[in-house]
Amino acid sequence: MAYLIPELIRKKRDGESLDDDEIRDFISGVTAGTVADYQIAAMLMAVYLQGLDHRELATWADAMLHSGDVLDLSSIDRVKVDKHSTGGVGDKLSLPLAPAVAACGLAVPMVSGRGLGHTGGTLDKHEAIPGFQVEIETERFVRIVDQVGASIIGQTARIAPADRVLYGMRDVTATVESIPLIASSIMSKKLAEGIDGLVLDVKLGSGAFMKTHERAVELATALKAIGEAAGKRVTAVISAMDEPIGTRVGNALEVEEAIAVLRGEGPADTRQLTTQLGAEMLLCGDACTSPEDGIARIAAVLDDGSALDIFRRMVEAQDGDPRVVDDPRAVLPRGRGRSSVKAPASGTVQSIAADEIGNAALLLGAGRRRKEDRVDPGVGIVIHKQRGDAVEAGEPLVDLIHNDHGVDEARERILAAYDVDLQPINTSTQAASRVLEVLR
Amino acid sequence: MAYLIPELIRKKRDGESLDDDEIRDFISGVTAGTVADYQIAAMLMAVYLQGLDHRELATWADAMLHSGDVLDLSSIDRVKVDKHSTGGVGDKLSLPLAPAVAACGLAVPMVSGRGLGHTGGTLDKHEAIPGFQVEIETERFVRIVDQVGASIIGQTARIAPADRVLYGMRDVTATVESIPLIASSIMSKKLAEGIDGLVLDVKLGSGAFMKTHERAVELATALKAIGEAAGKRVTAVISAMDEPIGTRVGNALEVEEAIAVLRGEGPADTRQLTTQLGAEMLLCGDACTSPEDGIARIAAVLDDGSALDIFRRMVEAQDGDPRVVDDPRAVLPRGRGRSSVKAPASGTVQSIAADEIGNAALLLGAGRRRKEDRVDPGVGIVIHKQRGDAVEAGEPLVDLIHNDHGVDEARERILAAYDVDLQPINTSTQAASRVLEVLR
Repeated sequence: MAYLIPELIRKKRDGESLDDDEIRDFISGVTAGTVADYQIAAMLMAVYLQGLDHRELATWADAMLHSGDVLDLSSIDRVKVDKHSTGGVGDKLSLPLAPAVAACGLAVPMVSGRGLGHTGGTLDKHEAIPGFQVEIETERFVRIVDQVGASIIGQTARIAPADRVLYGMRDVTATVESIPLIASSIMSKKLAEGIDGLVLDVKLGSGAFMKTHERAVELATALKAIGEAAGKRVTAVISAMDEPIGTRVGNALEVEEAIAVLRGEGPADTRQLTTQLGAEMLLCGDACTSPEDGIARIAAVLDDGSALDIFRRMVEAQDGDPRVVDDPRAVLPRGRGRSSVKAPASGTVQSIAADEIGNAALLLGAGRRRKEDRVDPGVGIVIHKQRGDAVEAGEPLVDLIHNDHGVDEARERILAAYDVDLQPINTSTQAASRVLEVLR
Repeated sequence: MAYLIPELIRKKRDGESLDDDEIRDFISGVTAGTVADYQIAAMLMAVYLQGLDHRELATWADAMLHSGDVLDLSSIDRVKVDKHSTGGVGDKLSLPLAPAVAACGLAVPMVSGRGLGHTGGTLDKHEAIPGFQVEIETERFVRIVDQVGASIIGQTARIAPADRVLYGMRDVTATVESIPLIASSIMSKKLAEGIDGLVLDVKLGSGAFMKTHERAVELATALKAIGEAAGKRVTAVISAMDEPIGTRVGNALEVEEAIAVLRGEGPADTRQLTTQLGAEMLLCGDACTSPEDGIARIAAVLDDGSALDIFRRMVEAQDGDPRVVDDPRAVLPRGRGRSSVKAPASGTVQSIAADEIGNAALLLGAGRRRKEDRVDPGVGIVIHKQRGDAVEAGEPLVDLIHNDHGVDEARERILAAYDVDLQPINTSTQAASRVLEVLR
């Protein structure tokens, strides 16, 4: 079926639905390189402005998924689940979640891209552990998932190649913030993992890509629809991303916090999110009877050391230095400089703008502006004062862990991020869960 | 001012207005080749779906105009006017209009592109005259306009190069049918002629690009707004394009009909349109006192041979065979075959679908499907039965003038075009002017 590409663009431009065959033809042309760049761009803009209905979206994502390889994990007996987050500042949840969920009897095969962001992605965070290899053979990855219960591998060029083309085009054509394009991009890669169930953590707030509740629900719904059309069990969680998560932002620093959580310690908010998201992953994999049961199970494997043990075996299996588990500070890279940002006045921390904390981390070198940028694993931010904390003028709000550059600009961002005021803060709000809504 | 192109695309995508500087930056980047094809495509789709307001449109067209050369006709004393038609089947009006208007004292400098269509453009029609050169030096063109009163030249690569890029992109990205893109494309080229006034003939109907009155008015208004923002006197005429114009369709055949009109003869509808459009051109150039006065002046120069004389001098000045004026049939190329399409039943011609007549001419080789196609000047259609004419079964409706191919398919198109029925037709409708509306 050779459709004329301009005719497909016209249909979408005029708000009509594309047939399944038309969508598959378009995506296979994108993959094969027979659709010109300018035609892809015109189609992306038409999709941006006219949308895709549920059936179109499911087909579009499925066509992208099948533009490349789909992992065959059928040799692994356990139920396979994963989690994907739309990205937040200080979001290191995948690190404790994978071993914790594996400790509860499920398998967690993580395939991760690098992407852009304030700090590195899950891949970069694992790579902050000396020796840790993410570019491993698929066979080895499958073996580690089978034997250890969890493993992480870098996304290869053979996974969803159509997404690679579209993703690269969206940034330069102002078609990034489109729900169907975001949803199909995420799901085409996640479904390539060959999983049975998936928990999607859709971040909402000033530090997230989705700024309004409506948009977050729209994205969650689209993601769920694609996954369910593909026969997967999918839960979408909408969680607050106004304040950074936990007290460490930056790659090695986040590994440190993740290990603390795996020891049954760590900041309360990070632990709470780990148990809640972990419970949803267990529910997806039929490994618990209720959210409360799931939370209890995750809490148990964090507290009894079994999650930490799986993490240690996973690090070892991927050539990382396993001593990181016992003494992270001695093993992880760390910026040479440490510089406090002090509170200019006394009061209570009313809010911390997550996006400004993220910008500060980016300025220090923790993230990527462009695909080709290198991440500095050792830099980042140690947060001393979280939302609701009392602070005296001159006390450190955060410490910047840095190397050669970005300190002055990062300091400005930190001061802009903190809102300290004399009025007291409602502690019930402070202690509230970040999980705002769960779409099971 | 180096704007980030994705930011400009985003603004338009979100329905915001682009600043003048932003538009000029975008168009100059298009001209210089620094804006990538896919970014042009995304912007075109965003403009297609979000539109341009009047100020943006005027700036966009002006930026396209000044992306290249603007003819300097200041050495010519006479007021300079031109006419542009959005294109219709059998529309040969430029051929009699230019000499007729010149005979009334104005100058008509025509710069014409080739474009696509059922039959060739004005350029191709002139080229059907043996020897006629349209690729002439600008200096020579200006001299002919000055001395003869009218001349035609092919659009060079130096006229509105930004339009060349955008025009080439629109067809393959399904962004052709956009009022602001159509209007700015037309006006950037017409204003490059260095004229004082312009009459725009916006065709409306089944055989035209604009199918609804609303769209035609929208285009007419956009064209007028651009021209007036550039300080030109602009009149937009909306004229009916349901039936083909006159009785000859095809390049040499249309020259023949044009010469008949220049002799004071020719089909009534072609003559009427010539006098009406000519009157509007005279009004634009202050060469008559009212539309009625203008019509009378044009009729006079058609009837007294002075328009024909100017046409003869123009043909001669551009190396064409001037004998075409006295004996067109002996000089013009003509397809080797002639084949009648006969009426299958008796009755009155209720309507003739102009687009199907156009398709028939295209099948015979009179027009271009693709830019690189060659036009066959000698083929086309001679219409024997116009709307309202009585016809007996077996009488010829049209004759196909053809060479080697397309006859059978063209015959089918002709039969599909004609609606012959026993019911009588309202002759007042039949005699009505094609001019539906004039926006002065």
